[in-house]
Amino acid sequence: MKKYSFKNDYSEMAHPLILEALASVKTAQFEGYGLCSHCEEAAGLIRKKLGAPDADIHFISGGTLSNLTVISSALRPHEAVISAETGHIFVHETGAIEATGHKVCTRAGYDGKLSASDIKSVIEEHCDEHMVKPRLVYISHSTEGGTVYTKAELTAISEKCKENGLYLYIDGARLGTAMNSSACDLEYRDIAKFADVIFIGGTKLGALFGEAVAIFNDELKQDFRFLMKQRGALLAKSAAMGVQFKTLFADGLYDRLARHSIDMAAYMADGMKALGYDLLFPAQTNFVVPLLPCAVSDKLCELYDFHEWKRLEKDVAVRLVISWATQQKAIDEFLEDLKNLR
Amino acid sequence: MKKYSFKNDYSEMAHPLILEALASVKTAQFEGYGLCSHCEEAAGLIRKKLGAPDADIHFISGGTLSNLTVISSALRPHEAVISAETGHIFVHETGAIEATGHKVCTRAGYDGKLSASDIKSVIEEHCDEHMVKPRLVYISHSTEGGTVYTKAELTAISEKCKENGLYLYIDGARLGTAMNSSACDLEYRDIAKFADVIFIGGTKLGALFGEAVAIFNDELKQDFRFLMKQRGALLAKSAAMGVQFKTLFADGLYDRLARHSIDMAAYMADGMKALGYDLLFPAQTNFVVPLLPCAVSDKLCELYDFHEWKRLEKDVAVRLVISWATQQKAIDEFLEDLKNLR
Amino acid sequence: MKKYSFKNDYSEMAHPLILEALASVKTAQFEGYGLCSHCEEAAGLIRKKLGAPDADIHFISGGTLSNLTVISSALRPHEAVISAETGHIFVHETGAIEATGHKVCTRAGYDGKLSASDIKSVIEEHCDEHMVKPRLVYISHSTEGGTVYTKAELTAISEKCKENGLYLYIDGARLGTAMNSSACDLEYRDIAKFADVIFIGGTKLGALFGEAVAIFNDELKQDFRFLMKQRGALLAKSAAMGVQFKTLFADGLYDRLARHSIDMAAYMADGMKALGYDLLFPAQTNFVVPLLPCAVSDKLCELYDFHEWKRLEKDVAVRLVISWATQQKAIDEFLEDLKNLR
Amino acid sequence: MKKYSFKNDYSEMAHPLILEALASVKTAQFEGYGLCSHCEEAAGLIRKKLGAPDADIHFISGGTLSNLTVISSALRPHEAVISAETGHIFVHETGAIEATGHKVCTRAGYDGKLSASDIKSVIEEHCDEHMVKPRLVYISHSTEGGTVYTKAELTAISEKCKENGLYLYIDGARLGTAMNSSACDLEYRDIAKFADVIFIGGTKLGALFGEAVAIFNDELKQDFRFLMKQRGALLAKSAAMGVQFKTLFADGLYDRLARHSIDMAAYMADGMKALGYDLLFPAQTNFVVPLLPCAVSDKLCELYDFHEWKRLEKDVAVRLVISWATQQKAIDEFLEDLKNLR
Repeated sequence: MKKYSFKNDYSEMAHPLILEALASVKTAQFEGYGLCSHCEEAAGLIRKKLGAPDADIHFISGGTLSNLTVISSALRPHEAVISAETGHIFVHETGAIEATGHKVCTRAGYDGKLSASDIKSVIEEHCDEHMVKPRLVYISHSTEGGTVYTKAELTAISEKCKENGLYLYIDGARLGTAMNSSACDLEYRDIAKFADVIFIGGTKLGALFGEAVAIFNDELKQDFRFLMKQRGALLAKSAAMGVQFKTLFADGLYDRLARHSIDMAAYMADGMKALGYDLLFPAQTNFVVPLLPCAVSDKLCELYDFHEWKRLEKDVAVRLVISWATQQKAIDEFLEDLKNLR
Repeated sequence: MKKYSFKNDYSEMAHPLILEALASVKTAQFEGYGLCSHCEEAAGLIRKKLGAPDADIHFISGGTLSNLTVISSALRPHEAVISAETGHIFVHETGAIEATGHKVCTRAGYDGKLSASDIKSVIEEHCDEHMVKPRLVYISHSTEGGTVYTKAELTAISEKCKENGLYLYIDGARLGTAMNSSACDLEYRDIAKFADVIFIGGTKLGALFGEAVAIFNDELKQDFRFLMKQRGALLAKSAAMGVQFKTLFADGLYDRLARHSIDMAAYMADGMKALGYDLLFPAQTNFVVPLLPCAVSDKLCELYDFHEWKRLEKDVAVRLVISWATQQKAIDEFLEDLKNLR
Repeated sequence: MKKYSFKNDYSEMAHPLILEALASVKTAQFEGYGLCSHCEEAAGLIRKKLGAPDADIHFISGGTLSNLTVISSALRPHEAVISAETGHIFVHETGAIEATGHKVCTRAGYDGKLSASDIKSVIEEHCDEHMVKPRLVYISHSTEGGTVYTKAELTAISEKCKENGLYLYIDGARLGTAMNSSACDLEYRDIAKFADVIFIGGTKLGALFGEAVAIFNDELKQDFRFLMKQRGALLAKSAAMGVQFKTLFADGLYDRLARHSIDMAAYMADGMKALGYDLLFPAQTNFVVPLLPCAVSDKLCELYDFHEWKRLEKDVAVRLVISWATQQKAIDEFLEDLKNLR
Repeated sequence: MKKYSFKNDYSEMAHPLILEALASVKTAQFEGYGLCSHCEEAAGLIRKKLGAPDADIHFISGGTLSNLTVISSALRPHEAVISAETGHIFVHETGAIEATGHKVCTRAGYDGKLSASDIKSVIEEHCDEHMVKPRLVYISHSTEGGTVYTKAELTAISEKCKENGLYLYIDGARLGTAMNSSACDLEYRDIAKFADVIFIGGTKLGALFGEAVAIFNDELKQDFRFLMKQRGALLAKSAAMGVQFKTLFADGLYDRLARHSIDMAAYMADGMKALGYDLLFPAQTNFVVPLLPCAVSDKLCELYDFHEWKRLEKDVAVRLVISWATQQKAIDEFLEDLKNLR
């Protein structure tokens, strides 16, 4: 039994307010399949947050299921996705997109991000009917490495997409940490302007489970409920997600949880630097990725759970993820242990 | 706003004990993706219940997702499923099985059930490589019409499957109501003897969400977690399902909820008959399907929510579903209203 | 070694004129993938034949490959096909359509044909997002039983499709025998008026291999070559098909071959009746389906190859297929043998 | 109209002996779907050539269709392919493999080849159920760049596959040019020892169309005809392919055509060098890839058809493909024109 897990931001069940909200509905009856008043109210709050009164909002139990449902609903069989090589759909979803029949075309990107010129390069390479036709760009914000897109970057990507008839889809499993990062100059309403469709993650920001898909582009709205049902993504008791997203978005809980995890990550990053450890890249959100000597990392992982990010020659970059539930004293203890390991 | 909904058995959020159990874990950390102690304990209880110590147990958020994950994991591309025409996968899952590439071969069946001779008939019809190769039999127990399989029926089906190298898969979305029906002479441990794989539904028996897949046949066990992940069926916070199934199976809650709904359905069925209404078929589980004059049905549905089952010449068969949460007074009031509508 | 095969109309390699035409190009170079002048000329002849100057014409090596490429190119994942239960795609293509992700919804039909009211019935049954959404109607003309659609029938089907936003796709593997049947009052140019897309079979009318897909509806034209390539349906040496279709359509060979097989079938049908055997249905095209006593059929199949169509109580309906190459003396001999078997 | 096309090795219809053989069968009847004596005889010749008396041999109309049928028949849904980035299935088949549901994992490779260490690297990266499971290695021999594998290379690859439970599949669209290359020290019977399955291309070595799939591993043999039919790869008049492969393999035509193209390529390569142009890599088979100044290439392509391989700073590497039908005088004229362009 280890002292604490920094493996991810979904190691705790759910924020107490979420659990209270779920319990409070008792045995009232409600419509299933996303048609209840809870879902409608939650959808209203999300639309307002995004400044997108016409967005269609759907609730899906997890991120991979959201990604495969959205992407396969948007593409004809020969159409493909453009993603960074580090994109979650390319690396960590067991070929879920390919299982729906579509190729993911990648570029290396930088800091976990895809650039407008990466998109251009994929487009130029795919010139005729012997190759797939890129049709949708997938980016994660914040990324799998905890970094964020700036307004300038997202503007450039969005323009490149529009020029080339590509949909822009944002995997917002951690949208809250991205939008509350000091490195990100975007506002929530910018998302609706730049993207065609997004999912906003609940799972990684305090919910028991559930993600909210927001569709901005009318072309992608038609028959989406059919596609959800077909992929097993139309939950019977969707009210359970409606209640959770109401709780997250009614009075700012979602952003508060995000900011807490960002603040704690910054606190840990400062502690790391104070101990003389460099970070692989700046801690923009709730990830801290320090470079530790292998020997230190090896001892540390006897006490704490975390993932290796990348093994370098002498050092190893480890990924420490701070959740909405991580308390300062867990970090203090961690830093103390780390100090003693040197 | 109607008085009550008899549309289905998942109109209420969750049994209070389930919600309490979820809340009780507070902010403890746990492993994700089905690897926590909650899931392991729940799996143990289910293995014990089924008398199947070697079964692999996996938790999936919903029934359609369970069906498509199990079925597509078991088949090569040219292999097909045999189902009754009324089977949930054939009618009400928006082609989810076909979307994974497999044909569903049907027979009319009887009372919502498939027979051993139906299976024989499909096998005989599929004779060469110009036709799909049937490989898996899908039955629902209880069925979409609320009926149940007897031990003799299931024995015959299982033997026919074994003779022909077919897997037998039971959709147990309502397994509890089937096994607690007086019309069903099967015991839980029979299930593991006859079937290769089953899912046991939580959603329709008091859980907030979640189904438990139990795999008995070793051939179907390999890499199942890969297939779950690929279909978006490996929930990050699977502990939430572990906790729920522990609650359902620790001390008989699952069966108690099933029996309550069966008893209430029997009570309603008796009331129907007392009012002079025939049932389309006997109320074996938690469904009551009376034949009502169309005029009566039309007025009734201004007061109550329910689905039509089948429109006959003068009468209409309506499907009234009783849930674990339905109280006797809701039924009394319904019968009183029905009496006054004549 | 049997005397003759009446199993199908593709038992001979190719019409001599086809083989000559192929040989005549010698070692000239040509563009691949349907872009050569042979394909363009053949396409022009087919457009003219159909009175459809704007049709897109593509050449594909076989019927199943044509069907799966066309159908999967036209549908979104949740959309389904309507077909007669006897439709080739439903029975004899090993689940090829389902393998591309789509359900085939069937009705029994009559004489191998689907009716406008069958279509209506499927549409009415599919009412919400828990069911697939019918989007394309598949009919075979002539059908798998050798019958043909009349102008009135096709008009009714086409209107039903247009009312409901359904595409109409005709499997014309044997279009020539249908259009030259005296039971069919349609002209070639009617096809382009009623259907959105068709394939015209070469394989069963004298070609070595190859079918011509003609797309009339602009919505279905976009990126079709990508979809062909993805399914393995864009043949490198497509010129081989271009040359064949030029030969078939340049001066009426296609219709002449069709008429020959129809005439020979009529001749055989008359012979059957003269011997006192009834036909299961009238010989409208190149199929003769007599009812023979089982004992007679059993002896007959020691001498000749043919398929059983349906086993009745005492009799068996056998399907005798006449090809473009079948000579009258083969039929005379067959009838003589049959006479002697009584 | 250009003087000559060096774009590929399938610009001519078919070798005269092939066309003669096809014409010679006249109107004899034969069984369809690969069951005729022509196919059986051709299969026998191929088994003998490969020293593999137990191999299953199947004929398929084209390479993409062969690749997608073989690969999708061998894999469960979560299993993936390993290929060089330059692999035909990854670049030039419009996502055909992904369309059957499978991811292709790539490594850069070298000279168009994949190495055993590339395979090791992919295996090591794929460590758990959040990632696809590599199961089949795809290599082209000769490669898309005209290079060949040596016995040492193939031995290492095969061993790496066996160690890791991976199938080895060889795309032999140009097997003949590979096996007759002086750079290749493999014998035909080595192929059956190292690979689990291969396709031997006819299209690029003088056939009108058709490829022969040879399955060595018993695990991959079961139900392959079902899978062919489902993908539209079971040609009705497969006899046409049987006749062609008999012609190619009866008395060495296949190897003679390969050697001719290799010799002519060597002749052209020498001519290039004599004119002072370097080759990007040695001409091992029937490809010549010289580095030309852009201005020269631009003028040359007004006279001749060919593809660019890669644009460098000042020069461009162009790919000149020699076919079985290319005559020395075409090359002489080309070299003369090139000389005059300087």
